[in-house]
Amino acid sequence: MQQEVTPLGFTRIKRVAPIAVNTHGGRAKCLQRLVRLDLPVPLTVALGFDAVHQLAEGRPIDITALLNVFGDAPLLSVRPSSEDPDWGGPGAILNIGMNDARHAELAEQYGQDDADTLYLRFVQAYAVHVERLDPELFEFDNSLTSGEALQRALEFYFEETDEDFPQDISLQLISVLRSMARAWEGTTARLLRQAKGAPADAGLGLVVQAMAPGLGGAQSGSGVVQLIDPNTGEQIVKGRFTRKSSDPAAPASATETLYLAKDPRGPSLEDVLPKAYTQLVHWAQICRTRLREEMEVKFTIQDGELHIIDAVRVPRSSRAALRAAVQLAEDKVIPVEEAICRVPPRSLTELLHQQVDPDAPRDVAARGIAASPGGAVGKIVFTSDAAQASEARGEPCILVRRETAPEDIRGMHSSVGVVTERGGATSHAAVIARGMGLPCVVGAGLRINHRKRTLTLEDGRELAEGDTLTVDGTMGEALMGEAKMLPVVKDKWYLQLMEWADSIRDIGVRANADTPADAAVARDFKAQGIGLCRTEHMFFEGDRLTVMREMIFAQTREDRHEVIARLLPMQRADFTELFQIMQGQPVCIRLFDPPLHEFLPSDRAGAKELAEALDLPLSDVTRRIEWLSEFNPMLGMRGVRLGITFPEIYEMQARAIFEATVEASKHGDPVVPEIMIPLVSAKREVELVKARVDAVATAVRGETGADFDYRLGVMVETPRAALRAHEIAQHAAFLSFGTNDLTQMAYGLSRDDAGRFMNAYVQQGVFPEDPFHTLDPDGVGELLQIGAERGRTTKPDLTLGLCGEHGGNPESIAFCRTAGFDYVSCSPFRVPVARLAAAQLVAKERLER
Amino acid sequence: MQQEVTPLGFTRIKRVAPIAVNTHGGRAKCLQRLVRLDLPVPLTVALGFDAVHQLAEGRPIDITALLNVFGDAPLLSVRPSSEDPDWGGPGAILNIGMNDARHAELAEQYGQDDADTLYLRFVQAYAVHVERLDPELFEFDNSLTSGEALQRALEFYFEETDEDFPQDISLQLISVLRSMARAWEGTTARLLRQAKGAPADAGLGLVVQAMAPGLGGAQSGSGVVQLIDPNTGEQIVKGRFTRKSSDPAAPASATETLYLAKDPRGPSLEDVLPKAYTQLVHWAQICRTRLREEMEVKFTIQDGELHIIDAVRVPRSSRAALRAAVQLAEDKVIPVEEAICRVPPRSLTELLHQQVDPDAPRDVAARGIAASPGGAVGKIVFTSDAAQASEARGEPCILVRRETAPEDIRGMHSSVGVVTERGGATSHAAVIARGMGLPCVVGAGLRINHRKRTLTLEDGRELAEGDTLTVDGTMGEALMGEAKMLPVVKDKWYLQLMEWADSIRDIGVRANADTPADAAVARDFKAQGIGLCRTEHMFFEGDRLTVMREMIFAQTREDRHEVIARLLPMQRADFTELFQIMQGQPVCIRLFDPPLHEFLPSDRAGAKELAEALDLPLSDVTRRIEWLSEFNPMLGMRGVRLGITFPEIYEMQARAIFEATVEASKHGDPVVPEIMIPLVSAKREVELVKARVDAVATAVRGETGADFDYRLGVMVETPRAALRAHEIAQHAAFLSFGTNDLTQMAYGLSRDDAGRFMNAYVQQGVFPEDPFHTLDPDGVGELLQIGAERGRTTKPDLTLGLCGEHGGNPESIAFCRTAGFDYVSCSPFRVPVARLAAAQLVAKERLER
Repeated sequence: MQQEVTPLGFTRIKRVAPIAVNTHGGRAKCLQRLVRLDLPVPLTVALGFDAVHQLAEGRPIDITALLNVFGDAPLLSVRPSSEDPDWGGPGAILNIGMNDARHAELAEQYGQDDADTLYLRFVQAYAVHVERLDPELFEFDNSLTSGEALQRALEFYFEETDEDFPQDISLQLISVLRSMARAWEGTTARLLRQAKGAPADAGLGLVVQAMAPGLGGAQSGSGVVQLIDPNTGEQIVKGRFTRKSSDPAAPASATETLYLAKDPRGPSLEDVLPKAYTQLVHWAQICRTRLREEMEVKFTIQDGELHIIDAVRVPRSSRAALRAAVQLAEDKVIPVEEAICRVPPRSLTELLHQQVDPDAPRDVAARGIAASPGGAVGKIVFTSDAAQASEARGEPCILVRRETAPEDIRGMHSSVGVVTERGGATSHAAVIARGMGLPCVVGAGLRINHRKRTLTLEDGRELAEGDTLTVDGTMGEALMGEAKMLPVVKDKWYLQLMEWADSIRDIGVRANADTPADAAVARDFKAQGIGLCRTEHMFFEGDRLTVMREMIFAQTREDRHEVIARLLPMQRADFTELFQIMQGQPVCIRLFDPPLHEFLPSDRAGAKELAEALDLPLSDVTRRIEWLSEFNPMLGMRGVRLGITFPEIYEMQARAIFEATVEASKHGDPVVPEIMIPLVSAKREVELVKARVDAVATAVRGETGADFDYRLGVMVETPRAALRAHEIAQHAAFLSFGTNDLTQMAYGLSRDDAGRFMNAYVQQGVFPEDPFHTLDPDGVGELLQIGAERGRTTKPDLTLGLCGEHGGNPESIAFCRTAGFDYVSCSPFRVPVARLAAAQLVAKERLER
Repeated sequence: MQQEVTPLGFTRIKRVAPIAVNTHGGRAKCLQRLVRLDLPVPLTVALGFDAVHQLAEGRPIDITALLNVFGDAPLLSVRPSSEDPDWGGPGAILNIGMNDARHAELAEQYGQDDADTLYLRFVQAYAVHVERLDPELFEFDNSLTSGEALQRALEFYFEETDEDFPQDISLQLISVLRSMARAWEGTTARLLRQAKGAPADAGLGLVVQAMAPGLGGAQSGSGVVQLIDPNTGEQIVKGRFTRKSSDPAAPASATETLYLAKDPRGPSLEDVLPKAYTQLVHWAQICRTRLREEMEVKFTIQDGELHIIDAVRVPRSSRAALRAAVQLAEDKVIPVEEAICRVPPRSLTELLHQQVDPDAPRDVAARGIAASPGGAVGKIVFTSDAAQASEARGEPCILVRRETAPEDIRGMHSSVGVVTERGGATSHAAVIARGMGLPCVVGAGLRINHRKRTLTLEDGRELAEGDTLTVDGTMGEALMGEAKMLPVVKDKWYLQLMEWADSIRDIGVRANADTPADAAVARDFKAQGIGLCRTEHMFFEGDRLTVMREMIFAQTREDRHEVIARLLPMQRADFTELFQIMQGQPVCIRLFDPPLHEFLPSDRAGAKELAEALDLPLSDVTRRIEWLSEFNPMLGMRGVRLGITFPEIYEMQARAIFEATVEASKHGDPVVPEIMIPLVSAKREVELVKARVDAVATAVRGETGADFDYRLGVMVETPRAALRAHEIAQHAAFLSFGTNDLTQMAYGLSRDDAGRFMNAYVQQGVFPEDPFHTLDPDGVGELLQIGAERGRTTKPDLTLGLCGEHGGNPESIAFCRTAGFDYVSCSPFRVPVARLAAAQLVAKERLER
């Protein structure tokens, strides 16, 4: 059966025919804009997503019409044009149209050597990217001239394919187009771009352009120019210009690369072709102001005549991106709102990354490749599951793997740093870690023993899972233990951006901070208070653990009361310090939450030790441990249930908070502490705790003679609390939604146990996203909305916040803002992210207006 | 300061002044109705709840007005009048007004002996109930005459109180009233009536009546009459009449008790006072038809003249209550709807109780007191927590305690039988067990060793926690192992009532049945199908467990598939049998639900054995067990998550169901199986399973050449599934709400772990009821409503059911009916309860119309 031949659809790029990014991609769009700016762009044709998809499918396609646009015997380039330049795409292929005849013609026109080089480059590219032959076969060293290399390449091509190198330009072009279309649809490319946020059905456009090959001696060549430094964003003419070498001693095929602007280190375009240079910078500036972006402009100079062949957004570091956005706004090229929107909030994470102090002494565990900059300290884990579990426990971890694969992405998200045994600068781990702004060292000199869960260093030392390791991704080293870290540099561009952001932002951003150190970071990052101060860690430290254990073994309420009273001065000091650091900003303290068995030893040896310490028979200790152990600790006796069953704990905490309030208010602004009750599911729980806390407040006011206010609120973590928010709000000054637990309970899914199937679930599209990473807007989100609406029905001025780990996510912030929340609270390092993300919501609305 | 004296409020009972039960209690109300029927009731005064509450408070109260009603020197009785006779109350106190003067007067009138007896009885009652003196002090044997006993009683009274017996009738009466009021408000009385459903603020009324003392020889005396047998409900004149002995040889104070109707065993009232007898029976019949209830009528005969002094509902067994209600309806005294409403649904549990076969050989473990009838088999547990955990696991258990206390009530609810080491027929365990219809033996000859968790029998044998025990509460014995049980007798009255009930009921009742035995019971109890067939037990039996373990250790999907295929014939046989038993009624099969680690050994020895069986290194086995263990199994990899991760299990089950469908449909009505997916939280889960199940159905249809229908539905157990019911219903023919898990997730509360604080929580009113026993109408209930409404929005003919353990509770049934559910499903033995409860909802509406 004869297959139908479809003509290939295309669009010739013209001054007046706009091109859409979502049908033809960003490069095509940009080229059309360059044409509209009257820049000297060679003849260009754009293929849309549909046409490229057709090409990938492999049906017979006719490109006669396309080729006719370019006239007789053209030289063509093909470049990818995806919707977002970050999504990658196949490399450009140049010099299509080179064949024996054209080769001879060009040799005549520009000399044998230039013609050989051009033909050689095309044969190489075609062999490797279209015919998928072994690249090493087509790499030749400098001992060969271009002509010799070309000869070999053509021979190798014949040997490998049993065919002569194709001479028909139509065949050449369709093969190039097809191979690029198929590369885009391959699994690896898809996974990589999806990791950068591309949708599953993201399309690829292609751009076919007549080449100005830049041949013809010193007046000819090709180069790129940009007006900023891609690492720092500094405004400086950067780029290069490559032309045939002007050194008479050099071989005929040798080239030299010139600086663009005058430079003491060597010759520049400005020196050799000052007019072309001036014209180029002028056009680059036009690009900047008219395309409203810092562009990298590709050009060729053919016999002194300048051609602009392409322009892309300058690939840049996060730091440079931020500075560029601010400068464009300061130069009035873009409005401030747009500058705010241009900086991806998550890029601040990278920007504000800690660095290992290079001057501090360091105990190097392993050296490798500096794959992604920044420094991080955490406990060693060997699997992505373990990383997720560790994150769930709130313990920073370093993921150490032989190498990483796509299924490790979630584990990497859960880690603060990554070290791999294998792989180079473009390995999976390196690429993904850079994308995430995660410090990473690859190809590190160490050996993982998966069975023993240890790793052996080159010097023979051994580290076990749980040991502390520092990753210095900037230097490419893993360091023993916790290395000294440098504070993050916040430059004036960052400060300007955040000032603009805060000036338009209309939802508050607080920090989850448990320790004075956390609180200091929170203040430093301009958090508007503490949205969640978990108090349980305060009970695990040294002596306090002993007290907790004594309390657990106390026989009577009075004994318990007496034991727990010994924690009062320590807790008071904890809170006083927090209040002082936060200087009158709100501090929301969550009352004791974890199940008591977390305070007891989990093995026999620990139980024996405890029995000795408490002078009790071992059987008493084990019985108590057994009694307190739970089938489902997440759903057990913790939070307010514990607070009601053993009221001494909350009474002590309330007293510590109030006494600290009095103390801290003496020296600074009056403190109005917020006290939050965890795991509430019924109004009566709030009533009972409120009655006791109020009584303690009255007592402390009486004893100290000082007056103070405080606000009692509820952490909404159970679906029932959200549903009954109208009742609960009767006794609460605020509701703060704990979306971690709320997600667990809405789905009936323990975060600690979900790792085992979450990857499979997300891959099969059962859940569009891991709901522990991205707030589920449908189920959990509806509970948030219901809770917010019902709470405000009872109490219109009820303060509403979100304090789960979703708090720093831009999606969650948008959700909360729409639902009328007063603030979100997130980990201190995510506060700038949240501030910027929140500001972008306002900025986008203003830009769309 | 002089306290204000309040006059006591009261109401004289008259023909035309109705009395309300909720202000004066049932006895007062009943007496007013007797007066309205022109029965010869002595002068009576009723005290309302408020008045009695005032009395209990102890402020000075003036009863002059009350006493004036009764004229000079009356003899009075005081009886309690609570809102519901089942709620108990203090005993009656008679002969108030007896004092030395009255004593002399009566001796004159009726003889010394009668006067002595009357005075003695009053002194005894007053000493014990008002002055709270030791009852033994006031018990005298027959060696004393009434006169001598009276003398001693008055002496003892003086010795104990340092005061003469009070002569002032006003003082006597107020003291009696106060003591009765206070007894009602005591803790024990409150707990006991609350166990019977009384609200915390239930009031007590009192009735003060002029006495017709029934003195004056053979023509005088007192008695009771009722027209049914209180055990069986049979229509027969029952009662007694007590008068002074007619035996000339008897001492002057001797009495004799006569039958009422003629009786071959001895003299009767009908023999000696035929006119009074005829009159009495006539009046008793008037009471039955006019009061529309089987009444126990108290009467006295004074010199041949009949007085009706009181009437109460005949205290009766559940069986008699049912028969009485049916007979009253058959006699057109009450409408059928009222008969339906009169039988408490929970009483059917008692009525339909199994009995241990008295003729089968029995191995007696311990003998004790037959405290509550019926027989039950279960595993021994020693604590209420263990009982609740056992119930949660679905394992019937026998609670064995030294003795029980109010905090054990929940544990008793979770048990099928109770045995105590201590206590008698009126001990806590005995009283509560009878109230619950729970087989119970108290004071059993055994010894509990709490430390070892064993019990030692009198013959030295030892039983451990988890061993099987049979309780024969009818015979007062605990039996080793599982004794042979007799099927429940369902008499024609029961059948008539249930026929009426089913004829008006408008919500379906199905049974949760996992085994053919369960299914047979379900059919026997007229369940309208199986609402929940859990399939996991089918994987634990014998060989199947081995297969499951092999599957868990299979390396590849193909291996897993091959291993699991070995279960296919067994599962097919399981389902074929179920379908055959249910004869075409719907059978809803829930696909595999539990986490895989439940199939693995939990200790080292078991792991070693398994390693041997599978020929694997122990380390492989332990690593797998570790990998599968979970922090929160309730929220882990189970249900549909397992079904999607290891699709082989659901595919095998679907095949077994369809092949069984074809098989069972050959010989009977066509079977339309219902397949239910557990633990769904997202629509896509349903889509994925549905695609696979549909494919299996197509395959089986092709292979067998038989056509069949089936319905695929979803078990709504997560809050998110309820919230997204509109999406989920797109792919579901039915939604069945699993309220056990839904409650756990709405509250964030594991049922297995809640026992530790649930009692305290309910006592403090944090939760009004244990939400695992009584459906939480607010939180969980709203999720049910939301799910039902949203599901029906998508699919108006969506079938809605409830299959949690709440399914049999009258409150839950009412909730589901209002929410438009099609059926509830409960354990087979609760099916009659549910059928009756559902019918009562309709009956009540009709009666109120």
